[in-house]
Amino acid sequence: MTSESSKGISRRGLFGAAGAAVATGVAGYVVHSAVSGEESQAADNTGPVEFHGPHQAGIVTPAQDRLHFATFDVTATKREAVIALLKEWTAAAALMTAGRDIGQYGAVNGPGEAPPEDTGEAVGLPPARLTITIGFGPSFFVDAQGNDRFGIKAKRPAALVDLPHFIGDDLDPNRSGGDIAVQACSDDPQVAVHAIRNLARIGFGTVAVRYSQLGFGRTSSTSRAQSTPRNLFGFKDGTANLKLEDTDKLEQQLWVQPEDGPDWMVGGSYLVSRRIRMTIEIWDRTSLGEQEQIIGRGKGTGAPLGKADEFDAVDFNAKTSDGSLKVPADSHVRLAHPQFNKGAELLRRGYNFVDGSDGLGRLDAGLFFLAYQRDPRKQFVPIQQQLARADKLNEYIRHVGSGIFACPGGVTPGSYWGEKLFT
Amino acid sequence: MTSESSKGISRRGLFGAAGAAVATGVAGYVVHSAVSGEESQAADNTGPVEFHGPHQAGIVTPAQDRLHFATFDVTATKREAVIALLKEWTAAAALMTAGRDIGQYGAVNGPGEAPPEDTGEAVGLPPARLTITIGFGPSFFVDAQGNDRFGIKAKRPAALVDLPHFIGDDLDPNRSGGDIAVQACSDDPQVAVHAIRNLARIGFGTVAVRYSQLGFGRTSSTSRAQSTPRNLFGFKDGTANLKLEDTDKLEQQLWVQPEDGPDWMVGGSYLVSRRIRMTIEIWDRTSLGEQEQIIGRGKGTGAPLGKADEFDAVDFNAKTSDGSLKVPADSHVRLAHPQFNKGAELLRRGYNFVDGSDGLGRLDAGLFFLAYQRDPRKQFVPIQQQLARADKLNEYIRHVGSGIFACPGGVTPGSYWGEKLFT
Repeated sequence: MTSESSKGISRRGLFGAAGAAVATGVAGYVVHSAVSGEESQAADNTGPVEFHGPHQAGIVTPAQDRLHFATFDVTATKREAVIALLKEWTAAAALMTAGRDIGQYGAVNGPGEAPPEDTGEAVGLPPARLTITIGFGPSFFVDAQGNDRFGIKAKRPAALVDLPHFIGDDLDPNRSGGDIAVQACSDDPQVAVHAIRNLARIGFGTVAVRYSQLGFGRTSSTSRAQSTPRNLFGFKDGTANLKLEDTDKLEQQLWVQPEDGPDWMVGGSYLVSRRIRMTIEIWDRTSLGEQEQIIGRGKGTGAPLGKADEFDAVDFNAKTSDGSLKVPADSHVRLAHPQFNKGAELLRRGYNFVDGSDGLGRLDAGLFFLAYQRDPRKQFVPIQQQLARADKLNEYIRHVGSGIFACPGGVTPGSYWGEKLFT
Repeated sequence: MTSESSKGISRRGLFGAAGAAVATGVAGYVVHSAVSGEESQAADNTGPVEFHGPHQAGIVTPAQDRLHFATFDVTATKREAVIALLKEWTAAAALMTAGRDIGQYGAVNGPGEAPPEDTGEAVGLPPARLTITIGFGPSFFVDAQGNDRFGIKAKRPAALVDLPHFIGDDLDPNRSGGDIAVQACSDDPQVAVHAIRNLARIGFGTVAVRYSQLGFGRTSSTSRAQSTPRNLFGFKDGTANLKLEDTDKLEQQLWVQPEDGPDWMVGGSYLVSRRIRMTIEIWDRTSLGEQEQIIGRGKGTGAPLGKADEFDAVDFNAKTSDGSLKVPADSHVRLAHPQFNKGAELLRRGYNFVDGSDGLGRLDAGLFFLAYQRDPRKQFVPIQQQLARADKLNEYIRHVGSGIFACPGGVTPGSYWGEKLFT
């Protein structure tokens, strides 16, 4: 354990150094059974994921089942206050991901006259594969007036672009942007909520929550050991996602390389978040045949149209007996495929959400899309431009929130999130 | 399996009649370990809970970990449309709780030209102890103008009162009321969401969603086999809750008895729902000592103040060396205790919620309180009047949504939800 971790009080008394998982983040996780009728294989999903390493955890870590994502705006004006917060957050994140209470006094053992240093709702719960991942938005480097807020304007990466307007965008500013993003993922929602809530508590006076989003079912696999889950359209999603086993491809598509720069981003990745509202009531009245033509896959099997198995390669030239393409030219699977995007891919780890109803008798439901990549200018932006222009799925979805964040490389013991950005 | 169930397509092909749990609903469930440091005991939480029985499932069923609650307003004007919907809903609920697709064609096997009869996002997922529980609100019997909407005005139970205004109530009408409430609980949130979403889909043209609420962590135990979870104040909650093992007490406090009437409610129970916003940012800056004085229990142990163990009886007469009460007169545990409420108790099965942020940099978080009882006039109403008047906890909470519903007795095979109300 690091020096930060050893300060914390174990939530259950059994998470010592021996409990730490390897740096690649391949801890146990739950694998939902496929439609074929296999029994579900529940592996251990209670253990910790190592916080330190060459990359931040929570990117290639096999996608956990629950999300609490929040962005924060910095309300402090001093560079020193931001640095102090990042140090305190890093120490707290190391403790929480190890399944420990924050701080010297913990949730319940402090002196009675002071507030507890941990809010306590995770007492008794295991680490539950908690990962906490940080990213910095464009507004962290320069404010709307172009001012160098914290002396880091010159360090803004060229790849951290302001996202362009995409056709059909219907963005709510209150669900978009943010100076700092924090993604907390866990197999236990209470553990993920506890993480964001305590970071918000620690940040009081320095940052304020801009928006917060819970997600309840992962919509992508990030490891070949995971089965492909279903999104709220009822389709398997993310079959062709980048996965942690694709080590060569991850260097090409996911991790910022030394030649890309800036230095502080090497080993990091760019996150694009999109809150995508699904008009599921309309989708649910669409025929099965049309649903499959729009997606380009079978609903039951997840296989590309014309194929039998989910993982069969898509044949974009195959034609039906009447001469039309089996996988339509405006289908989602085709427009999003690397073959039609100059080879660009994304590592997606989005979540389903249902946030009550919308006042019109419909569920406020959809996909909270999260995608990591080496360079959004070559990956998310052109892919989304093509999808926004031509994807038939656009009749059933609406992008209502958006964010882009530079997520630095991993944290080594003794350093803090973004240290290289400030030194 | 019932005739309804046998129509459905198994989501995994392995949930036959042998898979059905007993009527009391004591299927497997996850038990979180207590703070003492025991390892978590994960029992099987994937199986089905029997839908039919003398009482509706989802009341004394050991509380599942996830909630999707929704209320619906009836938009149809004909009694026959309501009866037809209740029949269709009952059949769908029997199938979904058994882990089956709805309808003859299921999610993915239908003829391509028709919409699937199931939305499909639960394909491949187990039943996950899904329960679906229905209740009818005052407005189902009589509209705001006093009209007998569906010919059932005379059958409105006297106990189904319009809740009075409680001191401090700050209710949002868009999160209150509703003609029909449906509570879906499961250990898998996607399964709970699938249930509400498909009932909404089936109800299109007859009902519209009024509001919907997801909850992510049970805040009460309803069985002695479950450990007591923690709420977002970090405290164990519901230690003294009514539990399914308290069979005699359940007849006195939970289930409507033949002498209570009306006939159609015998074996049923009344549900009060309250969306209780917690101002956790303020709570988190309160000292541990004050937190414990407000609740009346230790934060770590959950034990009543002055005692060592969570399940020790509260001693309301114990005094400290300076002569003040160990458990303060305005503490939550005292004001809510049966001893100070003419013996009245509730079966609580509420859930934590975090619904993003509130636009002021704070999490929109709290407790979605759900309590079942034999007669709200003798139970929830007087208890809440006392709490609203004197509970010190009121400085940190705000009731922002409210509902009351008459939940009929259990469904027998071949009948439908509320059949006795319409015959």
